[in-house]
Amino acid sequence: MSSGRFTIGVDLGGTNLRIAAYAEESGLLETILLSTRLRDGRDAVAADMCQGIRRLLDRYARAGSCAGIGIGSPGPLELPAGRLREPPNLPGWDGFELRATIEGALGMAVEIENDANAAALGECVLGTGKTRGIDSLCMLTLGTGVGGGIILDGKIWHGMVGMAGEAGHVNIWTDGAPCGCGGRGCLEAYASATAIRRMTLEMIARENAPLLAALGESNPHFTSRDVAELAESGDPHAKRIFDDVGRALGIGLASLVNMLNLPLYVLGGGVAKAWTLLCRPLFEELRRRSYVYRLTDPGEDRAAETKPRKTYVVLAELGSDAGLLGACLLPFANLSGETGGDRAD
Amino acid sequence: MSSGRFTIGVDLGGTNLRIAAYAEESGLLETILLSTRLRDGRDAVAADMCQGIRRLLDRYARAGSCAGIGIGSPGPLELPAGRLREPPNLPGWDGFELRATIEGALGMAVEIENDANAAALGECVLGTGKTRGIDSLCMLTLGTGVGGGIILDGKIWHGMVGMAGEAGHVNIWTDGAPCGCGGRGCLEAYASATAIRRMTLEMIARENAPLLAALGESNPHFTSRDVAELAESGDPHAKRIFDDVGRALGIGLASLVNMLNLPLYVLGGGVAKAWTLLCRPLFEELRRRSYVYRLTDPGEDRAAETKPRKTYVVLAELGSDAGLLGACLLPFANLSGETGGDRAD
Repeated sequence: MSSGRFTIGVDLGGTNLRIAAYAEESGLLETILLSTRLRDGRDAVAADMCQGIRRLLDRYARAGSCAGIGIGSPGPLELPAGRLREPPNLPGWDGFELRATIEGALGMAVEIENDANAAALGECVLGTGKTRGIDSLCMLTLGTGVGGGIILDGKIWHGMVGMAGEAGHVNIWTDGAPCGCGGRGCLEAYASATAIRRMTLEMIARENAPLLAALGESNPHFTSRDVAELAESGDPHAKRIFDDVGRALGIGLASLVNMLNLPLYVLGGGVAKAWTLLCRPLFEELRRRSYVYRLTDPGEDRAAETKPRKTYVVLAELGSDAGLLGACLLPFANLSGETGGDRAD
Repeated sequence: MSSGRFTIGVDLGGTNLRIAAYAEESGLLETILLSTRLRDGRDAVAADMCQGIRRLLDRYARAGSCAGIGIGSPGPLELPAGRLREPPNLPGWDGFELRATIEGALGMAVEIENDANAAALGECVLGTGKTRGIDSLCMLTLGTGVGGGIILDGKIWHGMVGMAGEAGHVNIWTDGAPCGCGGRGCLEAYASATAIRRMTLEMIARENAPLLAALGESNPHFTSRDVAELAESGDPHAKRIFDDVGRALGIGLASLVNMLNLPLYVLGGGVAKAWTLLCRPLFEELRRRSYVYRLTDPGEDRAAETKPRKTYVVLAELGSDAGLLGACLLPFANLSGETGGDRAD
């Protein structure tokens, strides 16, 4: 990007809507933070997006030229159409033509992407991928759900219709808990904030777990972070829940490492902050279940310098900005269609 | 490939060693079929390979020019080194420098590849991928083990060290049967010929399954094909075993479809011949567990013409020649290194 060029990125979430201007030299120039007005309907949210984009365009177009607009949206998102397909976190948006709506209102082309893919791109280009000099990775975002994105050689890997990388829906416990996707026993049902709440309530109902029971009684809206704090302070029941989360992540990562053989797997999102609770069972299961991992295990210096041709599983670096930064990078990411498409279309 | 150019392909198996000359216009020109002399050691097998290659080079170099030599080998195979890493089907070959040995003996460069990846390339370029006009697929080879290979945009996807695509080792039953890879409950432990024998013996030991028990008594070396024939003739116990194989395939494919979002998944190898026994439970599990599949389900005409942007799960077309043909194609496949590698190396 030459001097004076900027992009605009949008991170559309179920709760927050963030719109930012970004320049490669200086990073985020300005961020507009709005609530996502889901109650007012998708057209109102789209109008908020367009208004924010226009405001930033007006302000920064005086000093430079806009290289493009990128939008990260909750999925499933059908590409290249940019159409939402039954998105669980945007009720009522099924079939919404997000790309056409925004492009029609702005009179400009936009790059549109699943939010987990945008976050993976952000981590690859500006976060842990940059730190380690690695440009291929799989990122898992452990939030309300579990999102996933795959970057190959610096580019988002979309698959046929933009739905590749759904690492939250690899199989963990085949006859296990129902998942929001309609399946059962997916990683998302064991490693998301929602899953941690469910597992906590199940444990309270099943056995004598006094500190968890007290938490549930004093605060019916307790979060996965509350459970993590109990575990960090030594409560054995809360620790067992995070043991199970770590095991599920290790089991899922074993399938991913065996399938993908990438150099880097990145864990982000709020649940990943419990890394010290998760990492021992995670690596135990991963080492036990993946011979590809065992053959490329970096050994005890996992957290230290990068060795060539080893498999790293590490924490994300960009925190909650990964998705927004990734959206800002989309116009640079040479999204000339999808990988893994079919010639018949 | 211009007229008169040919390649040589080698399909190295634990039982058979096949070496062929191939021309794009005419297909396989000649195939040398040898036994793999495992008892005589890896150097003897390498010498057989080189002798066969030289014989075909001498014969066809009179009429045209050799465009390259491709070798498909059992894995795990470390690329680009071409070094075997604890290959379960080639005992005693751990650490064998297959590429260096062959290149040193021939004085020529060779393209070397995991055999399942070579078979996937063969099916993509000359088999079901060609038939359907699709150049990205994941192939599962259901034989003694379960091999896997991923082709993206016509090229083998290697991953960091050549071990991508190990679809036989995605998780099915987390606390299930031990797998040859050292893990537990992998697809290979439920959908390989070896697994079908084990599941049959387990059923004989567990319950009153008279026809299976009679098979086991009359022929202790019975094969998965024998069990399939009992199932095809209506034996309810044998049918339940293939139900379980189909379910395992559907559970594994659901993880793959959610992760990869490819247009085509191809089942090959001997066990896949029981397709009519497998396909109902396979598609039931796949549809139940993969929302990406449900959103791209081609519907009732799965076996008929290809619809754009749908997900197809179909039988391989090339039979046991897929791996050999894929090896012959390797010199054309632009193997300029690996996808998903790291810049630090």
